[in-house]
Formats: sequence, structure tokens, C-alpha cells
Amino acid sequence: MKILVINSGSSSLKYQLFNYEEKTVIAKGLCERIGIPNSNFKHEDASGRDINEGRSFESHSDAVRTMIDTLLDPEAAILESLEDIAAVGHRIVHGGPYFSKPTVMTQSSKDAVRKCFPWSPLHNPANLTGVEVCEKLMPGIPQVGVFDTAFHQTMPPKAYMYGLPYRYYEEHNVRRYGFHGTSHAYVARRAAEMTKCGGDEHRLITCHLGNGSSFAAIKGGKCVDTSMGLTPLEGIMMGTRCGSIDPAIVTFIAKLEGDENKDVDYIMNNESGVRGVSGVSSDFRDLHAAASKGNERAKLALDMFCYQAVRIIGSYIAALGGVDSIVFTAGIGENDAALRKVVCDDLNFLGLKIDEEINASTHGKEVKISADDSSVEVFVIPTNEELSIAIQTVEVLGLA
Amino acid sequence: MKILVINSGSSSLKYQLFNYEEKTVIAKGLCERIGIPNSNFKHEDASGRDINEGRSFESHSDAVRTMIDTLLDPEAAILESLEDIAAVGHRIVHGGPYFSKPTVMTQSSKDAVRKCFPWSPLHNPANLTGVEVCEKLMPGIPQVGVFDTAFHQTMPPKAYMYGLPYRYYEEHNVRRYGFHGTSHAYVARRAAEMTKCGGDEHRLITCHLGNGSSFAAIKGGKCVDTSMGLTPLEGIMMGTRCGSIDPAIVTFIAKLEGDENKDVDYIMNNESGVRGVSGVSSDFRDLHAAASKGNERAKLALDMFCYQAVRIIGSYIAALGGVDSIVFTAGIGENDAALRKVVCDDLNFLGLKIDEEINASTHGKEVKISADDSSVEVFVIPTNEELSIAIQTVEVLGLA
Repeated sequence: MKILVINSGSSSLKYQLFNYEEKTVIAKGLCERIGIPNSNFKHEDASGRDINEGRSFESHSDAVRTMIDTLLDPEAAILESLEDIAAVGHRIVHGGPYFSKPTVMTQSSKDAVRKCFPWSPLHNPANLTGVEVCEKLMPGIPQVGVFDTAFHQTMPPKAYMYGLPYRYYEEHNVRRYGFHGTSHAYVARRAAEMTKCGGDEHRLITCHLGNGSSFAAIKGGKCVDTSMGLTPLEGIMMGTRCGSIDPAIVTFIAKLEGDENKDVDYIMNNESGVRGVSGVSSDFRDLHAAASKGNERAKLALDMFCYQAVRIIGSYIAALGGVDSIVFTAGIGENDAALRKVVCDDLNFLGLKIDEEINASTHGKEVKISADDSSVEVFVIPTNEELSIAIQTVEVLGLA
Repeated sequence: MKILVINSGSSSLKYQLFNYEEKTVIAKGLCERIGIPNSNFKHEDASGRDINEGRSFESHSDAVRTMIDTLLDPEAAILESLEDIAAVGHRIVHGGPYFSKPTVMTQSSKDAVRKCFPWSPLHNPANLTGVEVCEKLMPGIPQVGVFDTAFHQTMPPKAYMYGLPYRYYEEHNVRRYGFHGTSHAYVARRAAEMTKCGGDEHRLITCHLGNGSSFAAIKGGKCVDTSMGLTPLEGIMMGTRCGSIDPAIVTFIAKLEGDENKDVDYIMNNESGVRGVSGVSSDFRDLHAAASKGNERAKLALDMFCYQAVRIIGSYIAALGGVDSIVFTAGIGENDAALRKVVCDDLNFLGLKIDEEINASTHGKEVKISADDSSVEVFVIPTNEELSIAIQTVEVLGLA
């Protein structure tokens, strides 16, 4: 069975075609700069093709058409007919209060995706465009929405409510939703398979640390808290996002800059985080390099990130009433052994110990990095959001 | 030796006169509605006077003059002459990066207090007015500023820096300052005297829970982190303040309300917190009463407050690498035994146990409420900010 996974952004469209039984990728590609001069097309597949060339993508329709033509090219023999695709799974960032699981896209579910536009003005419209173009160009194939927020819908009200006037919740659904849910769900499922202390009482903290970063507190496989909020700005500081700050600073900066609110949003989302503090880069490899050469602000940015991670993990240990397992995933979590060591060393007081050799040599593979006598298991588990979307798509359609 | 302590607000002036050796209050009073019709004067003292009557206070000068006349009244024999007052200690809310300890008020220190006006527009100008009126009406008596932020100045950069562009710190001193420092310092000093595990390694978390609430992580008597930030809005949700929220919500609400930023500030400071969530009250006694009658939103507000407290305490346990003692203080911390029980029960996993009988019967007195076999000592310590200001005033002047 073949499952196509689509991640449609405002000016890009990524896709992966899975052989579902084997859980292998038989083709993947990226249409870049849609609607912008100098669009580009990348594609590689099991036939050995490796395309990377300029193409004109005036719209998402152009991009999807190019993808279809490339997949159907008889010489490559990837797909004989579009009907070989059992279903298409679409990543959709914000499901608001409407989606607690993957959902087949119908008129009413698309309307609900539209209702979430105000909270995700960059992503949700682009995600929905991807769905609509695929409906048109791949008629009869089920289109499934898989939501970044869905995994977190099991949070209790004490975790998802903000201390704001109740009318904002009642009338505008202002609450914590959380993001990276597909990733947290994927690594939580893998951790439950790898741990020795699984079951309904398994207390797990997943740390998705990438360009965007978030944490989830998970009990028996169900999310009970997460660090991102109404939007993906809350929580730990990130590559260019400020994370949680005194909310009074938002209006303070707005007055200081004398600008309109959207500019404060831009500053908080794009000029802040480790890049804003360090003045060096949003890439942690650059920060380590600069810090090792004595750059104090790069060192500060790394110190702050690690300290905030420790504080959030501590808060989730209290929320869970203890912790059995911690998972590191995503770009930083999978590859930054130095950062993992700093965070884990600060948790030594729990009896948590990592095996320093194993940790230092673990990059992007599934490994337990805690020592045998550690009181807490620590895993590195590479995330695979595309595979997770494919699995969820199959499950919701009952195809497995 | 007699020390006068002044807390000057925008339309009120509170004072206490201490017999320093005895640490007793020999007179205290409150001038209310300064500059507003129907001003009122309250005063009681060691002579048995108990005044509560309308007086005209057109300005803070009127209020200070009335205080002085009342203290010097020969019939009451509280003070023979103003020179009997060894020093005046003034509460000043925001000391910014300029004050890490109590400071004698001079032209340059007053200028520094003025530089903090933007971060504390309601309190600091009123605090400074109190200083200036006392300088004029009590010439020759040293005036000392005691800052709510000073105790927190020992925080390391990783705790006080925000993940914002560095220029806001460099050019505008945007950072975490913390508040209630006089209270945290006072109860931390008492806890160090009461604990069996004191010294430089003593890991203490102080919970100042009142109409405004904040937490401090304290190691060996020095603050290493605190929950309020640039302003007293950050941290746990409070009586009417929202506490920490996704910063993107601030601009979301601004757009929603179609108003100017100051109105968002007003909403976050005055219409939020447990009052905003419950729709009932900012007073926790009212919330308990409503919750016990089945009011779901009152129950939610209490649940959220306790859960946020548990999360913050957990984050500080991680920051401190464990915890030896926890202190509850201020209106809620000293009197709300039910709330203390909920928070402490959620920390049972640490081996923390309270003595339920002692906890239930402890209201506003200095008591250890943890059980003898608890792994963490838990204290209720009534705060006494006025006495703490008097002590700090004496110490900085070397009068003791």
C-alpha cells in the first residue's frame, strides 16, 4: 500500500511517498519558491532519479501537478496510476479545539481548519491550500488532515487554561493547544516500546528540540501538559523565537519601537531566541563554535537554553509526580550531545545518570543514553513526522 | 532606637514606627484617598489611641504632616521630637539594575529611582514622592530606600535574561528583576534560623502567595531565580493578574479588542487571574466558598493556581538541584491551609509530607507544617515587610 504525505507551506510543498508495509520512502521531493521568481524542484526516488532544477511554480496547483507527473513518469515506474495511492496525509499545524485526532477532510472539517486561521495565519491557509489542490488533482483519493495540536488535546483544563478573562476562552477559544504533536506522539510511542516501565503509569517527558522546540509531559501515552501554547511562540526560547517572557514586555516593546503590533510579533518570532541573544546564529552548531572561541553572548544563549530546558523538565516532573523516561528528539535533541549532557547533568540530583560515551557518540539514531544504574531512562529517538502522518492516516481510515 | 517605615502609594501612605530593640510597633497608620474626595486617616499607637476619621489630604505632604503631628502629640507621648527617629526606611518597588541593597537616598540615588519609572509607572513615582516629602518635612533624618527587587539581584544571567534581541537588555535594561524581595528575604532569613539544614548549601523555595504572588529559589540565602520578571505581571496567575501566558496572546487580544496597548495591560493586570477565570472574586476565601457550592469556574481557578504553583516549585527544585525547605507566606500562604495541602500533596512523590493536623490549624503563625519523616521541611512563616525594611534600614546605616 502506498501513502502520500504532504506538507504544504506558504511558498513550498514537501512530499514523501511511503511503501506502507515496509515503512520505506520510495519517493520524496520539494517544490520551493512557489509564486516567487526562480522556483525550484527537488525530487529523488527509488528508481535512482535525483532531480534538482529550476521549474516554474506559479501556484500550489503547479507544484502538485509536477509532483504527480514525476511520480507517474513511466520510465521511473514509481506509480502506475494515481489510484495506487491509498490515501494522502496532510500536515496541518493548528487544529484548535476542533481536532483531537486525524480527520478525513470534508467540507465541514475544512471549515473547521479555516476557523483556526487567526492562530496560525502563516501555516493553516497554506496547509488547507495543499488539501484543496490535491482534492482537485487527485479525485477519489481520501485526503486526511493530521494536526500538530491533536496529540495534546488530552491535557486537563488546569494545564490548558490561561489566567485570562474567561470570555477569551468561551468566545475565542484562547487556550493552550501545543504543537509538534505528531513528533511527540511518534517518539512517545517508540519510547513506550523501548522502556522497561511502560503501561498506563509510565511517566514520560519528551523534548522536541529543533529550530522550534517544545516539551510534553505524557502519562501512560497521553499528553498532560506541553510548553507551546495558543501559538508556537510560548515555552523555551528557540532559534529565533523568544519563548515565554513577562507579557508586560510585549506592550513595553511595542511602545519602545513605536510600531504596530505585528512588528512586535515579528520581533518575538524572528529576531529573538538564541539568535537574538547571541547575535551570532540560530544554529546551535554555530553557537557552540562561537562559544568555544570565547564569544560570551553565544555562551549565554546556550546557558539560557539549557537552564530553561532544565526548569521545564523540572516542572513536568512535578506535574507527573515523578519521571520514568526522558526522550530527546529533533535536530538539536538528536545531534547535540554536549547540550544533552549539560541538561542531564543538571538532573543528576534525581539519580539520573547518562553513559557519557554512549551519549557522546549518539547522533540521530535510536539509543538509550542513560547509564544502567540511572533512576531515569534517557533515550535519543529520531523523530519521523512524515512516517507518523502516514501511520495516522492509515489508522484513521482503517486501512491497516 | 526608633525607626519609621513608610510605604507611599499613588493615593495612600502607610507608616509604622518601630521600637527597634524590641522589634515592636509603637505606632502605625494609613492615610487613604490622598488627592481624592473623602480622604481618611487611620492611626493606632502604644498610648491606646485608635483614630479612624475623615481628614483632608490634598497631597502626600498633607499626609506626612498629619502623621508627624499625630506622632508628636504630647498627650500620646509617642515621640518627644522628630529627632527621636533614627532613620526612615521607604519601600520602593523597582530598583532596576541600579540597586542590589538598601540605599541612602541622595540626589543621584533618587535619579536612579526615576530611571525605573517606565517599568513601574504606578508605584515608583509614588514611592519617590514619599521620600521627597519626608526629606522636606523631616530635615536631617536619613531617608533609606529599600527595594522590592534588590534581594533578587544575585540571580545569574541565565535566570534573569530573556530570549529577546540583546539590544533591549543593553539599551533598555529589559531583564527579569523580580519583586516581593523584602518578603522573600525576610522569610528566607527566618527559615535559615528555623531549619536543620542551613548553611551555604541550603536549598530553599519561598512561596509568597497573596493578592500578588511570586516564588523564589534561594541557595545559601542568595536568590538564584524568581517568578516575577521585568514587572510584577509574570509568573503564577494572581488575584487579577494573568501571570505567564503565550506572549502572542498579548497582540492577539490587542487586535481582538481593537484598542490601544495600555488597555491590554489593564486587562492583563486588573481583569485576569483567578477573578478573570472564575468570574467570582480575586479573594481565595470567596473562591473556596463558591467552589464548595459547585461553582465550576471557581474550582477551575483554584485548580489552575495550585497546578501552576506545583509546576513552578518543580522547576525551582530542578534549578536548585533538589530542595531542603519550602516556605509559605503572605495572605494566602499564611492562611489557606486547604491550598497548602493540595500543593504539598502533589509533591508527595519527593517524600514531602505535611502533618495534616498541624497544617489545618496553622493560620498566620510561624510553624513547621511538615511531618517529622518528611524529606523536605515545610514552614509557614508570616511575612513582615515593614520590620524587614526597618532591619535593612538600620543595617545599611550601621546603626545596629
